Amino acid sequence: MSFSVAVAGASGYAGGELLRLLADHPDFDVRTVTAHANAGQPLVDHQPHLRSLRHLVLEATTPEVLAGHDVVFLALPHGKSGEVTASLPPETLVVDCGADHRLVDEADWDAFYGGDYFGAWAYGVPELQTSTGRGRDALVGAKRIAAPGCNASTVALSLAPGIAAGVIEPLDLVSVLAVGPSGAGKSLKVNLLASEVLGTANPYAVGGTHRHIPEITQSLRAAGTDRASISFTPVIVPMSRGILATSTARIVQGATAAAVREAWETAYADEPFVQVLPEGSFPRTADVLGANTALIGLAVDETVGRVVVVTAVDNLVKGTAGAAIQSANIALGLPETTGLSVNGVAP
Amino acid sequence: MSFSVAVAGASGYAGGELLRLLADHPDFDVRTVTAHANAGQPLVDHQPHLRSLRHLVLEATTPEVLAGHDVVFLALPHGKSGEVTASLPPETLVVDCGADHRLVDEADWDAFYGGDYFGAWAYGVPELQTSTGRGRDALVGAKRIAAPGCNASTVALSLAPGIAAGVIEPLDLVSVLAVGPSGAGKSLKVNLLASEVLGTANPYAVGGTHRHIPEITQSLRAAGTDRASISFTPVIVPMSRGILATSTARIVQGATAAAVREAWETAYADEPFVQVLPEGSFPRTADVLGANTALIGLAVDETVGRVVVVTAVDNLVKGTAGAAIQSANIALGLPETTGLSVNGVAP
Amino acid sequence: MSFSVAVAGASGYAGGELLRLLADHPDFDVRTVTAHANAGQPLVDHQPHLRSLRHLVLEATTPEVLAGHDVVFLALPHGKSGEVTASLPPETLVVDCGADHRLVDEADWDAFYGGDYFGAWAYGVPELQTSTGRGRDALVGAKRIAAPGCNASTVALSLAPGIAAGVIEPLDLVSVLAVGPSGAGKSLKVNLLASEVLGTANPYAVGGTHRHIPEITQSLRAAGTDRASISFTPVIVPMSRGILATSTARIVQGATAAAVREAWETAYADEPFVQVLPEGSFPRTADVLGANTALIGLAVDETVGRVVVVTAVDNLVKGTAGAAIQSANIALGLPETTGLSVNGVAP
Amino acid sequence: MSFSVAVAGASGYAGGELLRLLADHPDFDVRTVTAHANAGQPLVDHQPHLRSLRHLVLEATTPEVLAGHDVVFLALPHGKSGEVTASLPPETLVVDCGADHRLVDEADWDAFYGGDYFGAWAYGVPELQTSTGRGRDALVGAKRIAAPGCNASTVALSLAPGIAAGVIEPLDLVSVLAVGPSGAGKSLKVNLLASEVLGTANPYAVGGTHRHIPEITQSLRAAGTDRASISFTPVIVPMSRGILATSTARIVQGATAAAVREAWETAYADEPFVQVLPEGSFPRTADVLGANTALIGLAVDETVGRVVVVTAVDNLVKGTAGAAIQSANIALGLPETTGLSVNGVAP
Repeated sequence: MSFSVAVAGASGYAGGELLRLLADHPDFDVRTVTAHANAGQPLVDHQPHLRSLRHLVLEATTPEVLAGHDVVFLALPHGKSGEVTASLPPETLVVDCGADHRLVDEADWDAFYGGDYFGAWAYGVPELQTSTGRGRDALVGAKRIAAPGCNASTVALSLAPGIAAGVIEPLDLVSVLAVGPSGAGKSLKVNLLASEVLGTANPYAVGGTHRHIPEITQSLRAAGTDRASISFTPVIVPMSRGILATSTARIVQGATAAAVREAWETAYADEPFVQVLPEGSFPRTADVLGANTALIGLAVDETVGRVVVVTAVDNLVKGTAGAAIQSANIALGLPETTGLSVNGVAP
Repeated sequence: MSFSVAVAGASGYAGGELLRLLADHPDFDVRTVTAHANAGQPLVDHQPHLRSLRHLVLEATTPEVLAGHDVVFLALPHGKSGEVTASLPPETLVVDCGADHRLVDEADWDAFYGGDYFGAWAYGVPELQTSTGRGRDALVGAKRIAAPGCNASTVALSLAPGIAAGVIEPLDLVSVLAVGPSGAGKSLKVNLLASEVLGTANPYAVGGTHRHIPEITQSLRAAGTDRASISFTPVIVPMSRGILATSTARIVQGATAAAVREAWETAYADEPFVQVLPEGSFPRTADVLGANTALIGLAVDETVGRVVVVTAVDNLVKGTAGAAIQSANIALGLPETTGLSVNGVAP
Repeated sequence: MSFSVAVAGASGYAGGELLRLLADHPDFDVRTVTAHANAGQPLVDHQPHLRSLRHLVLEATTPEVLAGHDVVFLALPHGKSGEVTASLPPETLVVDCGADHRLVDEADWDAFYGGDYFGAWAYGVPELQTSTGRGRDALVGAKRIAAPGCNASTVALSLAPGIAAGVIEPLDLVSVLAVGPSGAGKSLKVNLLASEVLGTANPYAVGGTHRHIPEITQSLRAAGTDRASISFTPVIVPMSRGILATSTARIVQGATAAAVREAWETAYADEPFVQVLPEGSFPRTADVLGANTALIGLAVDETVGRVVVVTAVDNLVKGTAGAAIQSANIALGLPETTGLSVNGVAP
Repeated sequence: MSFSVAVAGASGYAGGELLRLLADHPDFDVRTVTAHANAGQPLVDHQPHLRSLRHLVLEATTPEVLAGHDVVFLALPHGKSGEVTASLPPETLVVDCGADHRLVDEADWDAFYGGDYFGAWAYGVPELQTSTGRGRDALVGAKRIAAPGCNASTVALSLAPGIAAGVIEPLDLVSVLAVGPSGAGKSLKVNLLASEVLGTANPYAVGGTHRHIPEITQSLRAAGTDRASISFTPVIVPMSRGILATSTARIVQGATAAAVREAWETAYADEPFVQVLPEGSFPRTADVLGANTALIGLAVDETVGRVVVVTAVDNLVKGTAGAAIQSANIALGLPETTGLSVNGVAP
């Protein structure tokens, strides 16, 4: 079976990664790629690594161009997806990699993004625990999917098992992330220049202002608490891709170290793309580069009463494009792992 | 005035950085450099960047070779300094960059290092607040100085002001560090190979096992609490030098955001080498590369009730060799800033 | 159809890359992985990114362990393959990623390697032009294949078309390569430490001493000249993988710029894995990261009478493991491109 | 003695490096810093590493603001310096780090830059051999100095000794450079984004189009030939600073290997900032990071009849700002090495 596919925002990093994965996916046929300022140019001028797609030319991102495909993936700046999606036919599967359809609470949208609120769609983190099951339940047969924020899904996957199992406190969570600059997109900003990133570590959005915070707490509430609060600090480090999230939570009174570890191991025991490493092992982002895998290592620090959860994700794959395709696989009834590798490209 | 100087462990990274700084210091005259396996070889074979010292040859690290200098800097593996220092004359100023003389509590030494315990010396972090004043008080006229652990002093400087001022809780501290591999020394280990570090973030000593933890809590207790506990996780990232420590602490009930900021600004108002950035500014490690500066940015996250303190340090300078020289300046009665730059080499 | 496969030297970088590619190859079934010092340990302890192979345990590299597979890939230090291969059954397809079976002239072996000479096998660069056709001709049905040296094949592919077409002079060639440290293997050497590679460019084997030089001139002679000489300088730069070879050659009297370009375009017009970029475009190593593609850009500098050929290759894929698998595909009668992607992982 | 100094273009990379060096220079007093779009803002907002200059505010780049200083350093885009300098008083020492006053031949200017031609000034490479002496001869007492292009001076210093001594042929030179992105300035271009530079090598200006080519051949002609031609290819690699130039030249018939080496050793025997390494040693860019040193290693490849000269330079120091200050020292009669370190910051 082959589904026709369009990718909007194809000249950016998320768009490029969607295309890299789609190009080798056996059930998807990329017919159309679109862009904004770069429309009219060959795709390969902007994605020179996509050698198998060098016949494609970027078209304009309009409803007319996007209509008529079985699946449309959107990799647009926030605020843009909402405008486009309203005019796509209801029978088209639309997967939005932007932020426009992630937040269920309009107040969160207003506080962290602002502008028109477009409403929440099925959230594209299949493994995420919810009070009624898993994230994938809402994806089966879905026609509208919001792929997650890369930082947000990494942290949510890191902490949800402990909350769902009741072994960690949902308040006073702390998460510090080492992130590659590709997560910020192909944006012409001084702080994203190579000379500003090479050889240095650079924090941003310090002190509770990052837009992924409400998305994290929303996921943690879904996992089974009525309140969740997290101190969240991302640090740009000199690797093009990757997120290494170090998250800590206070262990609830009486939970043993074994019970804590078991919460994570049980939660992800049957998941192909979220894997808990054995005691004493911790992941590196290189281990998941190019892969749709989230690798989790955890340690209980009994001296301080906290569990430390270290999770490695490729921000462009499991954090964005891989999550989008995994979710689309589920929505279309394909095997969930189709076209997605668990193996990283290392060293 | 010119003091004769010997540097032991001159073929390693800390030794090399001591020599780089000493070479341009107006009051120090490097006469002798020693090594272990590399004794007999030209210094420049191991430190090809030290062009002004290319006349020096590495000698053996023995008491006889080191004796007869006004100042001896030691950059040796832990356990080695203690052996050497016992046989150096009492009138020689000895500055140890290793761990052997940092911990005041032998139980801490036994738990995190083991082997012979050599006793604590004056601790080389002049700016550190203590219940009776500053770290520099103990350095004036000292003949034995323990330069700090790079991670330990970075975190201690980050959190001590809040503890001294009583605006943060000393328990449930969390610190996550992005660190360069040079902090681990010139060691032939697989995880320090370039192919293992480039393009990736790699956590280590997760869960409370890092040897700098007792050194941190010792400094925090000295700042004015009888208990301190910290979750501490270092992450190696692909920059040769630098520490970016993101530390968070719960704000005590009733402390305002202004009071929190004031604690740090007051603590370091007169310090040349520890500078607090204005609200909204946060440091990068590049800003302090090669400099003896610790740059601190902080934000109060009122939603979660925590202060986030981000501190950038060059692990080899303010974290090690610069701290050693700054402390020696104090001990010898030289102006504290002699031979040390506050300006980083960026980009 | 499924062929059983063993990989010897599975804990190193070349072995790891063979396994990464084999794991997703539809016709190969990895049954056995072997190592030397690491025998007895789980593969994943040494290749933590190979999540789909985490059931495998490293066995000892012995003829007994390797026998009984349809295909054996060897990723051993030079001198070791020759010892092992003599005892493997003739009907087994053996692909050696080491140097032992590459050089046809024993004098070259003696001059650049030394020790026992094991004789040359079919050379695993299918696209390489020869006086009688292509490198792949010798691979069809072969039972013994020597995968190429990564630098050697990159330079040979860069220059062979000009020599075969008679548009460049085979003498006075110059090639300077920016290479990642993974090409040197997982070796515990000081110059391969991260602190020695990050933020710096480091030349080695300057002045005609690199072991890949005779392999290059051998390939260029095969392409149609009786003499070839090249100044060859590799420079390690801070990227884990990749080769960017900048090669220049004097254009023969009378050859037009158009004729020069046509030599390369014609040579590789039908090759899936060697692609010549349009005029004015030049490749980056990121464009081929993880891919089996060699990307070539060229420019005629009429002022100096030289053509400049810039070629990007992933040293571990098209330079080693991908070339090995592509060659095995040919030898076994599988479609040549099976299991190999042309698309790089970027950014 | 203290000279008052203004730096124009102070928010860019070259301007920042001028200020870093000037801040620790005992005879210069930075009074004024100017910028274009950033005028009115604190310097430290754009140069957060210059902690000792955080009292300075960027002013507009006008003749009025710049006038009245003893020395004016210009770090402006090409075409801009020429406009400014015409209105500065003749008694002011003006050092231009841009290209406007480097080329002696207006035809070169027209071919590689275009626009108004402003005429050549004394060229700021003191060590460069000329038919009548050294580059420094023209700098003594000069009031107008053109600091060199970083790539151009690196290659000129690499090859001039061989040409001056008559041991290499001036035609058919080949130079390939690994360069850091800071050489391209703080420009908002896609190819300078961190995600485009990390983990990759990227050639540009391939085939004889780079603007430093006429500057190189001009210097080589000055060293003693009436014709010089060079194939020149720069490759951006993931290090913020540094140039590693690998240059090769055909050895003239009859010149021995010893005579070749002697040409370089003799040329730079008395130079503090240009050092020739012993046989078998080659430089890394890390060895000169932050230093005003050019380190040169050379090997004679007798098989191919070429000498290979590898030179490491910090593009922002010896390549630009250090050369400017060294030249200013000479012009003002200060010791040439004042305020400039020979030691690199490594690792």
